[in-house]
Amino acid sequence: MDKFDTRSEDDMKIGIIGLGKMGYPLALQLKDRGHTPVAFNRSPEKVDNIKNEGVEGAYTLENLLSKLDIPRIVFMMIPAGEAVDSMIASLSPLLSQGDILIDGGNSHYKDTKKRYAIMKDQGIHYMDVGTSGGVDGARNGACMMVGGDREAVAQVEKALQDLCVENGYAHVGPSGSGHYVKMIHNGIEYGMMQAIGEGFEILSESEYDIDHQQVAKLWQHGSVIRSWLMELTENVFIQHDDQLKDIVGVVNASGEGLWTVEEALERKVPAPAITASLFARYRSQQADTFSGKLLAGLRFQFGGHKMETK
Amino acid sequence: MDKFDTRSEDDMKIGIIGLGKMGYPLALQLKDRGHTPVAFNRSPEKVDNIKNEGVEGAYTLENLLSKLDIPRIVFMMIPAGEAVDSMIASLSPLLSQGDILIDGGNSHYKDTKKRYAIMKDQGIHYMDVGTSGGVDGARNGACMMVGGDREAVAQVEKALQDLCVENGYAHVGPSGSGHYVKMIHNGIEYGMMQAIGEGFEILSESEYDIDHQQVAKLWQHGSVIRSWLMELTENVFIQHDDQLKDIVGVVNASGEGLWTVEEALERKVPAPAITASLFARYRSQQADTFSGKLLAGLRFQFGGHKMETK
Repeated sequence: MDKFDTRSEDDMKIGIIGLGKMGYPLALQLKDRGHTPVAFNRSPEKVDNIKNEGVEGAYTLENLLSKLDIPRIVFMMIPAGEAVDSMIASLSPLLSQGDILIDGGNSHYKDTKKRYAIMKDQGIHYMDVGTSGGVDGARNGACMMVGGDREAVAQVEKALQDLCVENGYAHVGPSGSGHYVKMIHNGIEYGMMQAIGEGFEILSESEYDIDHQQVAKLWQHGSVIRSWLMELTENVFIQHDDQLKDIVGVVNASGEGLWTVEEALERKVPAPAITASLFARYRSQQADTFSGKLLAGLRFQFGGHKMETK
Repeated sequence: MDKFDTRSEDDMKIGIIGLGKMGYPLALQLKDRGHTPVAFNRSPEKVDNIKNEGVEGAYTLENLLSKLDIPRIVFMMIPAGEAVDSMIASLSPLLSQGDILIDGGNSHYKDTKKRYAIMKDQGIHYMDVGTSGGVDGARNGACMMVGGDREAVAQVEKALQDLCVENGYAHVGPSGSGHYVKMIHNGIEYGMMQAIGEGFEILSESEYDIDHQQVAKLWQHGSVIRSWLMELTENVFIQHDDQLKDIVGVVNASGEGLWTVEEALERKVPAPAITASLFARYRSQQADTFSGKLLAGLRFQFGGHKMETK
């Protein structure tokens, strides 16, 4: 029996563009929830892989769009920035009035608003979906912050809700607001993570021989700071030694923390903890600092304090 | 039938000193879990109240101690600092070798270590229990970080575990370590709270009309920042208007955030986010600042920039 015969009234056919860390599991989850994803990826290997897991694949955008029902629903899960503009440029001539194009990635909300306006001129609905919950959430139930026109959102809402844990879906406002709320979510995440990192670093330097894994587990149960991040903290200490000797403490930042701080600057909102968290990540990426060199030099200048030199 | 006839083998009789926000519900919970609290409070009204809820009461320390089995177990839940030293001074002549005295409050770990040493000289076991989970946790299942000698801890462990949610109890090390771990817990709490506060303040200043309550609820379900603090954030927006117009943004600090930063300074651990969070609380307590006055004055001096003056 062809699987299409079994499609229920609620079953939605959705093109997924981008089978990376998030797109791939989202496509699988969509299938598990009774929908029909059609998956496209720039490099064909991932399409091969997901076809082996029973998901319909497409190797060209033309082929992808030909397999979708009208109005077409296309969900992009690709890196923010140039990749999104380039994909829109490729898709744009292939889409028709009334089609719905969704950006599920971490785009800047100002870019989203511009793209929305351009698409609107072509009669194409453009939606933004901030997606949280990590890879596990993408596979088993995510949290989605949705921005866009009520009319377009209503058409895809059922499928997006199916991809989320209960109450993990909300239409938060007009175009850009989904990405905006996701940006702030990530800013808060930066601050929470930094606080956890600092706390455990003090613990690790304390006069006590604290079992970090034990404490991370303990704090998940009944404490004020119980959280998913604390669960993940325990996982880190389960998977590594208690001093994390095998991990290098370089923390990358993919943009949304920076944008949160930029937004705070633009709105003149003091955000010292989130800003400090972003700068701590930048510092972690430096082996040595120019400011440190200069300060050491100045201390020598005025006080003869010994510098370390190469 | 006298209730003492029904005491099981596991039933422990424990003196509770201090029937404040935490001690009162802890005594009630202890009773609910099949133990026998005997409650003392400096002001007798609270003893009256808890007796009305079926908990045995005592109006003097002598009377309290006379009602306990030997070795006596006494759990203090009183404000950190002078109150603890004063209570220990009163209790000390009344306790006997082998008795166990527990400080369940937020004492500084260095004070705890000193008190432990003094009590040890008298043959009295002194334990520290950092207690988290707020008032609700005290009533229904807390998180306890326990420091002290293995021998003493073993004697009271069953009752303390009964007061905690599952896995919410751990003996983390020798004297002071329970309070130390609780101190760091609170430092992390400062950072997490500040990050949440900053994030929602940016949201509130955004170009969008974001429904804060909706977002706080959404973020509890499937997002990376899901946490008990986010649940409480939703509660705040449920119980107040979305702009929090009726709350004054003054945030007090009861000591453990400061101690975490002091500990970071002593151990030379950079803790920028937790420190920024503490300073944000201090700033919230000021109507105006001397530094702001001085900076405004300096800008006028060099640039003629207009000052606001009274």
